[in-house]
Amino acid sequence: MSAQFEQVSVVKKSNIYFDGKCVSHSIVLADGSKKTLGVIFPSTLTFNTGAPETMEVVGGVCKVKLAGASDWTTYTAGQQFQIGANSHFDIETVETLDYVCHFG
Amino acid sequence: MSAQFEQVSVVKKSNIYFDGKCVSHSIVLADGSKKTLGVIFPSTLTFNTGAPETMEVVGGVCKVKLAGASDWTTYTAGQQFQIGANSHFDIETVETLDYVCHFG
Repeated sequence: MSAQFEQVSVVKKSNIYFDGKCVSHSIVLADGSKKTLGVIFPSTLTFNTGAPETMEVVGGVCKVKLAGASDWTTYTAGQQFQIGANSHFDIETVETLDYVCHFG
Repeated sequence: MSAQFEQVSVVKKSNIYFDGKCVSHSIVLADGSKKTLGVIFPSTLTFNTGAPETMEVVGGVCKVKLAGASDWTTYTAGQQFQIGANSHFDIETVETLDYVCHFG
């Protein structure tokens, strides 16, 4: 996992969700793929997906329960998890999380 | 003021200051110049500078008092202010602030 993306466009204005518990910046790669680089502060939140998403954990620790799952799975830096289209997942941020969300 | 930067490198991991009141992502432009894209949640903070900085307000409202100044000046989206090297400034974020910090 590289520590940075190269040759991307990045939107200056942030995306803020859940009253500031989640903050992200949107980027577009040279191949047109869209991603967000974000932070989730300690909290337990439910995210809804439109497009399928891959959540890559860059730093911190979280527990995740995907739609329909009964168990929580822990993810740490270097790990990732996938969410289907038009779905949702619960996430408990144990330590402030740095993530990259890959869409599509 | 363009809404985004093109052809930049962006670091995946965020910079978090003041217990999460300030969150930023670092970028490097094609010409080598370094900037951060960030958010400051409502608070009153004191920032110290190493290199000179230009703070560009992308969204929100803040009041700023530069080192040695006696008055606070209000800045809104599209405005900017400059801080010298090895100095400091007080900033009161009235509404959650989106900013770009230009170094050097």
